[in-house]
Amino acid sequence: MTDKTQNAMWGGRFAAGPDAIMEAINASIGFDKRLASQDIEGSRAHAAMLAATGIVDPSEAEAMREGLLTVLSEIEAGKLVFSTALEDIHMNVESRLTEIVGPAAGRLHTARSRNDQVATDFRLWVRDQCDAAEIGLLALMRALVAQAEAGADWVMPGFTHLQTAQPVTWGHHMMAYVEMFARDLSRFRDARKRMNECPLGAAALAGTSFPIDRHMTAEALRFDRPMANSLDAVSDRDFALEFLAASSICATHLSRFAEELVIWSSAQFRFVKLSDRFSTGSSIMPQKRNPDAAELIRAKVARITGALVALLTVMKGLPLAYSKDMQEDKEQVFDAADTLMLALAAMEGMVRDMAANTPALEAAASAGFSTATDLADWLVRELGLPFREAHHVTGSLVALAEQAGIDLPELSLEQMHTVHPGITPAVFDVLGVHNSVASRQSYGGTAPDQVRTQIARWKEILG
Amino acid sequence: MTDKTQNAMWGGRFAAGPDAIMEAINASIGFDKRLASQDIEGSRAHAAMLAATGIVDPSEAEAMREGLLTVLSEIEAGKLVFSTALEDIHMNVESRLTEIVGPAAGRLHTARSRNDQVATDFRLWVRDQCDAAEIGLLALMRALVAQAEAGADWVMPGFTHLQTAQPVTWGHHMMAYVEMFARDLSRFRDARKRMNECPLGAAALAGTSFPIDRHMTAEALRFDRPMANSLDAVSDRDFALEFLAASSICATHLSRFAEELVIWSSAQFRFVKLSDRFSTGSSIMPQKRNPDAAELIRAKVARITGALVALLTVMKGLPLAYSKDMQEDKEQVFDAADTLMLALAAMEGMVRDMAANTPALEAAASAGFSTATDLADWLVRELGLPFREAHHVTGSLVALAEQAGIDLPELSLEQMHTVHPGITPAVFDVLGVHNSVASRQSYGGTAPDQVRTQIARWKEILG
Amino acid sequence: MTDKTQNAMWGGRFAAGPDAIMEAINASIGFDKRLASQDIEGSRAHAAMLAATGIVDPSEAEAMREGLLTVLSEIEAGKLVFSTALEDIHMNVESRLTEIVGPAAGRLHTARSRNDQVATDFRLWVRDQCDAAEIGLLALMRALVAQAEAGADWVMPGFTHLQTAQPVTWGHHMMAYVEMFARDLSRFRDARKRMNECPLGAAALAGTSFPIDRHMTAEALRFDRPMANSLDAVSDRDFALEFLAASSICATHLSRFAEELVIWSSAQFRFVKLSDRFSTGSSIMPQKRNPDAAELIRAKVARITGALVALLTVMKGLPLAYSKDMQEDKEQVFDAADTLMLALAAMEGMVRDMAANTPALEAAASAGFSTATDLADWLVRELGLPFREAHHVTGSLVALAEQAGIDLPELSLEQMHTVHPGITPAVFDVLGVHNSVASRQSYGGTAPDQVRTQIARWKEILG
Amino acid sequence: MTDKTQNAMWGGRFAAGPDAIMEAINASIGFDKRLASQDIEGSRAHAAMLAATGIVDPSEAEAMREGLLTVLSEIEAGKLVFSTALEDIHMNVESRLTEIVGPAAGRLHTARSRNDQVATDFRLWVRDQCDAAEIGLLALMRALVAQAEAGADWVMPGFTHLQTAQPVTWGHHMMAYVEMFARDLSRFRDARKRMNECPLGAAALAGTSFPIDRHMTAEALRFDRPMANSLDAVSDRDFALEFLAASSICATHLSRFAEELVIWSSAQFRFVKLSDRFSTGSSIMPQKRNPDAAELIRAKVARITGALVALLTVMKGLPLAYSKDMQEDKEQVFDAADTLMLALAAMEGMVRDMAANTPALEAAASAGFSTATDLADWLVRELGLPFREAHHVTGSLVALAEQAGIDLPELSLEQMHTVHPGITPAVFDVLGVHNSVASRQSYGGTAPDQVRTQIARWKEILG
Repeated sequence: MTDKTQNAMWGGRFAAGPDAIMEAINASIGFDKRLASQDIEGSRAHAAMLAATGIVDPSEAEAMREGLLTVLSEIEAGKLVFSTALEDIHMNVESRLTEIVGPAAGRLHTARSRNDQVATDFRLWVRDQCDAAEIGLLALMRALVAQAEAGADWVMPGFTHLQTAQPVTWGHHMMAYVEMFARDLSRFRDARKRMNECPLGAAALAGTSFPIDRHMTAEALRFDRPMANSLDAVSDRDFALEFLAASSICATHLSRFAEELVIWSSAQFRFVKLSDRFSTGSSIMPQKRNPDAAELIRAKVARITGALVALLTVMKGLPLAYSKDMQEDKEQVFDAADTLMLALAAMEGMVRDMAANTPALEAAASAGFSTATDLADWLVRELGLPFREAHHVTGSLVALAEQAGIDLPELSLEQMHTVHPGITPAVFDVLGVHNSVASRQSYGGTAPDQVRTQIARWKEILG
Repeated sequence: MTDKTQNAMWGGRFAAGPDAIMEAINASIGFDKRLASQDIEGSRAHAAMLAATGIVDPSEAEAMREGLLTVLSEIEAGKLVFSTALEDIHMNVESRLTEIVGPAAGRLHTARSRNDQVATDFRLWVRDQCDAAEIGLLALMRALVAQAEAGADWVMPGFTHLQTAQPVTWGHHMMAYVEMFARDLSRFRDARKRMNECPLGAAALAGTSFPIDRHMTAEALRFDRPMANSLDAVSDRDFALEFLAASSICATHLSRFAEELVIWSSAQFRFVKLSDRFSTGSSIMPQKRNPDAAELIRAKVARITGALVALLTVMKGLPLAYSKDMQEDKEQVFDAADTLMLALAAMEGMVRDMAANTPALEAAASAGFSTATDLADWLVRELGLPFREAHHVTGSLVALAEQAGIDLPELSLEQMHTVHPGITPAVFDVLGVHNSVASRQSYGGTAPDQVRTQIARWKEILG
Repeated sequence: MTDKTQNAMWGGRFAAGPDAIMEAINASIGFDKRLASQDIEGSRAHAAMLAATGIVDPSEAEAMREGLLTVLSEIEAGKLVFSTALEDIHMNVESRLTEIVGPAAGRLHTARSRNDQVATDFRLWVRDQCDAAEIGLLALMRALVAQAEAGADWVMPGFTHLQTAQPVTWGHHMMAYVEMFARDLSRFRDARKRMNECPLGAAALAGTSFPIDRHMTAEALRFDRPMANSLDAVSDRDFALEFLAASSICATHLSRFAEELVIWSSAQFRFVKLSDRFSTGSSIMPQKRNPDAAELIRAKVARITGALVALLTVMKGLPLAYSKDMQEDKEQVFDAADTLMLALAAMEGMVRDMAANTPALEAAASAGFSTATDLADWLVRELGLPFREAHHVTGSLVALAEQAGIDLPELSLEQMHTVHPGITPAVFDVLGVHNSVASRQSYGGTAPDQVRTQIARWKEILG
Repeated sequence: MTDKTQNAMWGGRFAAGPDAIMEAINASIGFDKRLASQDIEGSRAHAAMLAATGIVDPSEAEAMREGLLTVLSEIEAGKLVFSTALEDIHMNVESRLTEIVGPAAGRLHTARSRNDQVATDFRLWVRDQCDAAEIGLLALMRALVAQAEAGADWVMPGFTHLQTAQPVTWGHHMMAYVEMFARDLSRFRDARKRMNECPLGAAALAGTSFPIDRHMTAEALRFDRPMANSLDAVSDRDFALEFLAASSICATHLSRFAEELVIWSSAQFRFVKLSDRFSTGSSIMPQKRNPDAAELIRAKVARITGALVALLTVMKGLPLAYSKDMQEDKEQVFDAADTLMLALAAMEGMVRDMAANTPALEAAASAGFSTATDLADWLVRELGLPFREAHHVTGSLVALAEQAGIDLPELSLEQMHTVHPGITPAVFDVLGVHNSVASRQSYGGTAPDQVRTQIARWKEILG
């Protein structure tokens, strides 16, 4: 059964022979239709410039510009049927425009080529995605700040090697991600700025002999300037690579938080409860709450990294200027951008909805003599012990507590004096997880005061 | 305009809030519908086994099996509307089956879980792709052998560093790719054999207490045996990784040949003329013939490598058994398989259609004193000169020919004697590109006899 | 300070100008010296063949073969100083051989080129690594089987989504990895078999006019046969790619187990205690035991995948036959092979040393009503309830238990009858984690009997 | 023989058992010794701050700072033997410092941890590499501008699909790469700016209770500010990822130019002659000139991309804060940075040395009716023909020329009038490759005037 289906499918695709194969491998309308609005916007800017420079008649240009708006509304309404025979979005739009405004539509292609046209369209699309990433990141950062604010002084374990190392605060942990996503934001902004130059007017590759005004089209499309070399303009795909690289790094951050949420949701940790909306349950096992969204976000970094690898490999060793290989750029970026925006939105939703299990967090933070380093630091700082001795004394005190089955703050001063007679009651100010976190007052430290300072800074930035 | 469109799209996707986001990230029916026939085949085998082992009533099982065929025909006819609310292909099929055969359809899921079900479906799909790759590779190999047979003695330059090194034959060059694609074929066969074990019956992860017969379902689905560990059965995606790895290596071979075709099609090389079907021209530049299909094939290796990287990254560090991350496996494999099959078909078409420019090949082969190493080898072999001296003598003869503006075979014996008196007329048997290639009689060498031996061997294998 | 050091270093590298840069980028002796023993073995086989075919004098050949052994022993003793000016291992060996046996050493290069020489050397090296991987995998599998045998009936949670799903046995979990590593082993064996063809005698690319016997050298080097196409022989790097692909998949398995060990070692899980040898502690926090080796193994998959991506990218679009790009093949494979063998050895050590915390495993397995599905299956199987009703009844029983603060097996029959009167005392046979795992008797299931069957099978295979 | 050697090596590595394996996988001194100067610079800044804040005695701090300089000079002189037992560079330095200044050296580690220490060291190292990349890029850009200036009006073919499309100028082609490398430069500068925040003082992960001054150490190490979140400070590796991403994109540009150089150096193209220094020849084939350096540069992008993939994969899904996995960051970045700097230097050398073959370039530019589009544009622009008709007329004129075996500028006006009577003598102003390029006066076009404008702009920027 399978084989028959398989063969039918195969036959359906390729039975028609070489022409069907060539169409299947060559046509891009199946995916580049997503550039429709960018293509039309670019063409409208080009038409206006052709009129302003006297290359085409102003009334003809105006007819084209109007006609293009009609095509756009038809596309948005889903009324335009794209033709694979017309290969790509540019030809599909031009063909429909010709039906609307007549052969004069042909003048729209004066002093332009598909090479600079697609470079412009795609750049506009990627620029929009930088903006979308900014919106998604800002929303996620706000959600994290809200969590941080709620729990600026909730203690939880700070892990190294997934082993409890020192107590930190929930707010501090949330704000760590705010810093990461802020760098992502800054990367998308830098990328956007760098890509914001207009290829239009580079024509096929050499520029044109028509007296075009590239600064005018650049400005109309809200680019900072025209690109300075026409060969570069049609063969560059840096903007796509840089977008994918920034997305990969951002997705790495998302995957780290997602991993934490998966682990924190386990029956063994129970640090956090995800909302029903972002997890799935079992009809018969009430505690089971699968963190599906977190797992999928964790996996999505793979997809974005795959897209980055793919485009880097496509571009490797390509001679100038345009090669058809570059048609492979769009699907990778489309998929990566969709994936990133979805992952950002899902993460924001999860963060907004999630409920910290503060007793579990605090209990875990207290286990394992997690304030032993605080004690050692106190011995150095207050009693002037050398580091090595302070560690030795601390080790003995921990052993004492362990034997007694109690935690460090529960040791009496007398018990402590059996190890080191110089210890004073002030030691209790640093023992216990609350004292521990409160004492980490260094800039950027986990002390609630420090965390609140950072929260306040970010609230002002995020508005 | 762009922004508005963008926002509308964005809004359209996520405005409905968290539930829409979760559905977007969680539902797989958008892509796993491609597993429909595999899913139904697996369910039919499962139903038959449930009946044979007395777990369900035979008549109920038969009703399910019939009902499943109805669902399949509806899907093949495009009549079943898939529901995103039902998440995946398994639930969509089961839901439709329930409509057809009533609540008894629920018994189909006895002793089974979506975990082993999807593992079985996907494995069947990938196994089919190994077969499709075999078909595509065999067709391509036959096309290459046909080219090799036509030109078993056409001389052309053998390149190292893209510099002419020694003359070889067209047939020899074609047969080099036959060897490469034969290894690819062998890799797909090994992968197919290794993946041909059946996960069905592993249930959620631990096996089942129902008295199922896993060997029966394995056999019904043409697997060699059931998988021996139920945890492994639901968490393994090796078969997908190995398929992607084999595809990546195969695509690398395709990209190498594609690069050659692009270079050979240039005005500077003119070694080959691609057919109109696999290239595009210029209405006003008659010689321009863009090798679009070759460029796209060259680029496609990137896409397949990207998929491999993505799935390796997904699987990195995933605890047993099933994690939702693994839902990211399918789209990567679907896309890579489609890409590979298309690239194989396009390459086969190009190879069948392409016409070697034999005069250009021979002229290029003869340039640059390409038989100098033949001369040096002759001096070693026939005159017993040490290697170093043979090279020295050859260098002097080449210099003599270069000064005279002629090629080596055009030197007279007298001229040669001015460099080394021992040279005999037999030297002319190895000079000239035809003599050169004819002399490379070592096993696997470029001599037409050797090449024809290999062609004959492959024709027998390929049938 | 930094800058000065940096500049000095920089200056040191490149101050000497272009020649130093070219040497730095071009010379390979810095890494291909690792091919020394393979290079000498290949040369010895070649010399013997040259004598047997009468191409060189037998006594000269014997002198070369003896001289080569001398060179090898000098290299193994660290007495040979490699010269960068001599570029690569082949020239370094040949140069030293010339010092030992005089200019006759030059005859060794008859009917050979560096192109087929390096292809042979590297293939021998990679073939050795397949054998090393086999040794490493077998040792690891034996360690896993030993763990499985010890704990064939220890219960532990079977996870999906890192949520407890159903109880499984420790032995079952260990044996899942045995299956994975067995597939890895099989992949390395297939790769080894496929690569076991000899390139020697392909010469520069076209074969040779000397009457060599390629079958003789192939046999001497324990290859199955000579490669059948000389162009392919010098331009193929499939064997390296396939080794890297198999290594990447194997490393993925290692990373999955490593992740489990990291999580299982956490204070929250405490499923396992790693030995001191494979973890690092804290002088003052006695419970802290950082699973360093596991973390590093988890990370190493990245390195191997990176090498695979690198070599796939190197080979993309390379025209035949040899291009210098291919010199980038070795370092990637050297590093990946070293990494894999080290990771296998470290994992084997960890597995041998690790101690399962059986009480913690059992407690975790029992939590969360993990036998609810057993109950539902029992209701279907024994009482003939439809699936949906069985789930409903189970849900009610779980709710009853949850309210009472007890687990399912602790419910009395009377309590159960309040939900469904048909339940019989036999139900208790499937409740409780031990009953649950014992009931999973399907082939490959988690029942201790099934697990022991698999252990026995593997013990026989592994010897 | 091979096997014995192999086993000896293997034995040598691991025979000592688990401890040797753990040391091999765990110790980082083998590679992180490259951080020596950064480590010492960081420690000196830390010591000064500890004194300034009264945490340690000023005279003790001064002794440490002096002692650290001694250690540095010992390392730079190659006199310090690193110990694997001491694991990493930090411990090796500290151990030697203790020998020099006594146990007081232990105070240096007050309010610091290896986590923030290594984060600081590595960040300093990567920051230096951004500077090195800047130096390398600027030198390469200057070399390209020099080539562009020499050949601002040399005509050559502008390619699409490796087919001659339109004539361009050598200068224009060179300047395209200046634009690409300028974007690379800008990316490294952005990355440098973003990474220029100081992790020191984050301690293990939570900050410290010592009254440290993180702004002081940040300033001493020329960072813009301390990092604002201590958890982020020790777990962030964005700076390394961003450096690798920028390097990958830069290497892609290098690979494109390298591919062109390889193709241009072929006997079929002969567009360029590389210098002896960056190519290798054949003793007996005088024209053969293998572009080794170009091929290696082309391949190096693979290595850098591989490193990026590796580090992205390492970081995927890592929970906060420090995990040992992160130790895998350094080797990837070290290798990628070395590779990039070497490739930049080699490319600069090749560009400086290479000689364009201007007659070959011009001949190739003129072939294939490469000014047909100029003719069509002229018909549109000057005679007001619609695009479609202009193309038709041009096609007829090309056919006429092809029949006559001449190029377009060689057609007489009479011949042209047989196709379209309106053509005026002014048409000859755009025919011929020199006229063609001169006419491309649009901003960024290939007209020598435009190219010179860009050259002048860049010369001013590059100084």
